[in-house]
Amino acid sequence: MTYGGIEAGGTKWVCAIGDGPDELHELTTIPTTTPAETLGAATGFFQQNGKIVGIGVGSFGPVDLERGSITTTPKAGWANTDVVGALRAALDVPVAFDTDVNAAALGEQRWGAAVGLETFSYITVGTGIGGGGMANGRLMHGLLHPEFGHIRIPHDRASDPFDGVCPYHGDCFEGLASGDAIRARWGKRPEELSGDEVWDLEAGYLALGLLNIIGVLSPQRIIVGGGVMKEPLLLPRVRRRVVELAAGYFDVPELSDGIDEYIVPPALGDRAGVVGALELARANGSG
Amino acid sequence: MTYGGIEAGGTKWVCAIGDGPDELHELTTIPTTTPAETLGAATGFFQQNGKIVGIGVGSFGPVDLERGSITTTPKAGWANTDVVGALRAALDVPVAFDTDVNAAALGEQRWGAAVGLETFSYITVGTGIGGGGMANGRLMHGLLHPEFGHIRIPHDRASDPFDGVCPYHGDCFEGLASGDAIRARWGKRPEELSGDEVWDLEAGYLALGLLNIIGVLSPQRIIVGGGVMKEPLLLPRVRRRVVELAAGYFDVPELSDGIDEYIVPPALGDRAGVVGALELARANGSG
Repeated sequence: MTYGGIEAGGTKWVCAIGDGPDELHELTTIPTTTPAETLGAATGFFQQNGKIVGIGVGSFGPVDLERGSITTTPKAGWANTDVVGALRAALDVPVAFDTDVNAAALGEQRWGAAVGLETFSYITVGTGIGGGGMANGRLMHGLLHPEFGHIRIPHDRASDPFDGVCPYHGDCFEGLASGDAIRARWGKRPEELSGDEVWDLEAGYLALGLLNIIGVLSPQRIIVGGGVMKEPLLLPRVRRRVVELAAGYFDVPELSDGIDEYIVPPALGDRAGVVGALELARANGSG
Repeated sequence: MTYGGIEAGGTKWVCAIGDGPDELHELTTIPTTTPAETLGAATGFFQQNGKIVGIGVGSFGPVDLERGSITTTPKAGWANTDVVGALRAALDVPVAFDTDVNAAALGEQRWGAAVGLETFSYITVGTGIGGGGMANGRLMHGLLHPEFGHIRIPHDRASDPFDGVCPYHGDCFEGLASGDAIRARWGKRPEELSGDEVWDLEAGYLALGLLNIIGVLSPQRIIVGGGVMKEPLLLPRVRRRVVELAAGYFDVPELSDGIDEYIVPPALGDRAGVVGALELARANGSG
C-alpha cells in the first residue's frame, strides 16, 4: 500500500509518495503560488507517479478541519481554499487533512522523537510560530486546533521596546518571538544575527511560551522545530531558561537535570511534515 | 452499585456515598487537619455508612497520580501523604485518584456543563488557581497534570506594581489573580471588595489566562469555578475581555457572540468535586 503526502506550506508544498521516512519513492517541491496552480501541480505529480490508495495533507492555516479547507489566511488568494475537495475530485482517493504541525507531530510519534508518547507538543518557530501535538494518544483538535503562537507572554518594554509584528495582537508570542519578529526587531534575518543580546532575548521568549504549554497541557515531551531553531546557540539557552522559570515547582527530572531529553529537536528534521502527512493518510485508511 | 467519593481539599474533605448529583445518600464534611486524623475520619464515615464498591478521590495537590499520593504541598504535615494506600488498607475497595479539578471536570462532563464534549477545560479561581479538564475524551494527564496557575501572563507593573504572591514564581497567573493575590494586593478579602478598579484588573488577568488555555489546547468550552468567581461582576467582564484579546483571530462564534455559552460556570456548583469523585470511582470500576 503506497500513500501520498503533502506538506502544504505557505511558501512551498512538499509532495511525497511512499510509506515512511525510509521509503520515500518520489518527492517533489512545488512553489505556493495560486491555489489553482499549486493544487494543479500537486495533483499532476500524484497522477504521474502511479497508484496511491490515499493522501494525507498537513496544511498551513488557520484551517477548518471538518471542511478540509484553509480559512482566514492573509496569504493572497488562499483564503477559503477547499484543499480536500480539489484533491478528492482530481485523484478520487480518501484525503486526510490536518494542520502542518499536527502532521509533523504524527510523523514524530510514528518514527521520530515522540515514539510511545500519548501527550506531547510540537512547536515550530519559523516565519510564524505554530503548535500542535497529541493529547491522550490523538492529535490535538478541539474548538479549532492549537494556536500556540497567539498566547500572551510577559513583555518587558523597558528592555525590549519592540511592539511585536502580529497584525491581530501585536506582542503575542508569535509577535515577539517568530522569525518575522526577529527580522523586524533587529533589521536582519535570523541567520545573519549573532550575539548574546539577540539569542538570550529570543530564548527568554521561547522559554515563556514553552512554560505556558507545560502549565496548560503537561506534555510528556516538547519537540521544537522550525527555521529559527537552526541557530545552534538557541536550544541550549531555551532549555536552561525553562528550568529557571519553572523554579523547582514541577517536581520531576524532566524540568531539571533531564531537560535535554524533554525539550528536543524533531528527529525527522525537515522531513517531519511530509512524512507525517503520509502517516495521516495511512491512519485515515486504517481508522 | 453505590460508590464513595472524596473531594479532598486543603481546608476540608467532602465525603459522599451515592451514584450521582441527585443520588447522594450520605454526605459529610471533615476539616483537613493532619493526615492521620482526616484520613481516619473519612474511612470511619465510609465504614459506618454501608457497603460501597469503590472510592474516587479528587485531591488537592500537587499529586503523584501513579502513586496516589500528595507530593510537595506546602500544607503542613501533608507532603508525601499516601492517600490511596491509606484508603485501600482501611476499606479494601478499589480507589481511583485524580486531581480535585480533574474530578470536578469529570462530574461536569457526566452531569453538568460539559456533557458530550471531548476537549474542555475546568479552571478554579479560589485561594489558588487550579486547572484540569479533558482532552480527546480523557482526563488531562501527561508528564504530571495541568498547572494552569503557574503559567506566565503579561503584568504591567506601571498600572499594577503588586509583586504577586506565588512563592515559586512571584507574578505568575496564580500569583497575580488568585484569591490570595487579591487579598494581598488590596488588603481585604475578595468578598469585601467592590469597584471597577478591583474587578477590571482581575477580569483582565483571568482573561489572559483563559486566552492562553485557548491558544494551547483549543478547548470546546471553558468552565470557570471557585470562590473568587462568586463575585457577580466578574464573569461577564472576563468574557468581554477574552473577546477583546482574541481580537477576531479565531474565526468562530464561541469567541465572539457565543462567548456566554463558551466560558461558563460549573453547572454542578460546589458539588462538582465530590460528585466527580463518585464518577471517578464508577469509571474506575467499569474501565
